[in-house]
Amino acid sequence: MSFSPLLKQLIDAFRVLPGVGAKSAQRMAFYILERDREGGQRLAHLLTQAVKQVGNCEHCRTLCEKPLCQVCSNKNRDHSLLCVVEGPAHVAAIEQTGYHGLYFVLSGHLSPIDGIGPQEIGIDALAARLTHGQVKEVVLATNATVEGEATAYYIADLVKSLKISVSRIAHGVPMGGDLEYIDGGTIAKALADRTTI
Amino acid sequence: MSFSPLLKQLIDAFRVLPGVGAKSAQRMAFYILERDREGGQRLAHLLTQAVKQVGNCEHCRTLCEKPLCQVCSNKNRDHSLLCVVEGPAHVAAIEQTGYHGLYFVLSGHLSPIDGIGPQEIGIDALAARLTHGQVKEVVLATNATVEGEATAYYIADLVKSLKISVSRIAHGVPMGGDLEYIDGGTIAKALADRTTI
Repeated sequence: MSFSPLLKQLIDAFRVLPGVGAKSAQRMAFYILERDREGGQRLAHLLTQAVKQVGNCEHCRTLCEKPLCQVCSNKNRDHSLLCVVEGPAHVAAIEQTGYHGLYFVLSGHLSPIDGIGPQEIGIDALAARLTHGQVKEVVLATNATVEGEATAYYIADLVKSLKISVSRIAHGVPMGGDLEYIDGGTIAKALADRTTI
Repeated sequence: MSFSPLLKQLIDAFRVLPGVGAKSAQRMAFYILERDREGGQRLAHLLTQAVKQVGNCEHCRTLCEKPLCQVCSNKNRDHSLLCVVEGPAHVAAIEQTGYHGLYFVLSGHLSPIDGIGPQEIGIDALAARLTHGQVKEVVLATNATVEGEATAYYIADLVKSLKISVSRIAHGVPMGGDLEYIDGGTIAKALADRTTI
C-alpha cells in the first residue's frame, strides 16, 4: 500500500472502533479527508472532550460528565424502584419505554471463567446502595443470555436476603414476532410463562 | 433517551462517518468511553493532525501530507506510464498489484446531470500534465459503472488527440467467479472481449 505515513496512522486509529475493519477504516479516513474535514474536526474535538470529562454517575454508575446523571438527579422519578442493567447502553434502551424508576449499571455480567466475579462488575456497590437506600423493588434487566441469567439469579439471592422485593423482566416471543422463525428455547419459555387473559 | 449532553453530541459526531447510523454511533461512543479511552484519544489526535496536514500531491493529486506523494517521488517507477483513477482509495487498490507506473487521481467521475464536468474532476489538470510531461501511455482505470465508462471515453479522446497511446483496464468475469452468479452484462462483455489462448 502506498498510503502516506499520517494517513496510514489515521486508518489504523479508526480500527479501534467496534465493527470497523481494514476496509471500513480506510473508507472513513478517505471520506473525512475528501468530503467532510469539518465533521472530522468536530469528531476529534468531542472525542477529546468526552474522554477527559465523561465519568460515571456517583449514584447509578452510568456514563455522564456530571457527578449525578439526569435520571438520578430527577426528583420526579420513583426512587423506590431500581432497575439493574449490564451497561449504559441498556439504560438508553429502557428509557424508550417510559420506565419511571432509577437504575443501577453493572460493568457487564458475571463470568467466573474469565475471572469476573461480583466485585468486578459492581455487585458490592449495589449491595451497599440497597442496604442504605430507599429502594423497595429491584427489577433485574440483565441480558437474556446464560451469563445475564446467572447474574440475575445471583443478584436476586442478594436482594431477597435484604428483604427487598425483586423481579425479572419477562422472556418470550418478541412483539411482532412470527412463531415460525422463533427458536425453540424462546417458545418453550413463552409457554411456561404464559399469562391468563 | 437519557444521554448526557456531551455523550449525545459525541454520538451525533460519530454519525458523520460513512456507514455509521444511530445505533453504530451509540455503540462506538460507549465502546470508547467504557473500554478504550486511550484509543479514542489517539484517534482524536490523529484526526486533528490529518485534517490540518493532509493535502493533495502536487503531481498526481492523491491524498498526502507532503508536496509530493511516495509514488510520485520514487525515481524507480516508470514515469512514462500513467494510470488514471477516480479517487485516492483506487490508488491503494491498484498498488496491491505490483503496477510500477505513476497515477493521476480525478475527483470522482463526470456526471453532467449533477453539474460535474471535466473541470470539476480535474481533467484540465490531467491535460496540462500530459502536454508538458513525459507520459507515453495512459491506462484508464475508472470504475466499470456507466459514469466511469463515460469518463474513460471522454479522457481517451483527449489523450488520443495528444498522440499518446491509451488503454482501458479489462472488464469480464472476476478471478474465482462462478458463471452461475455473474450478471448477463458482465458475461456478454467477457465473451465479446475474449482473448486467444
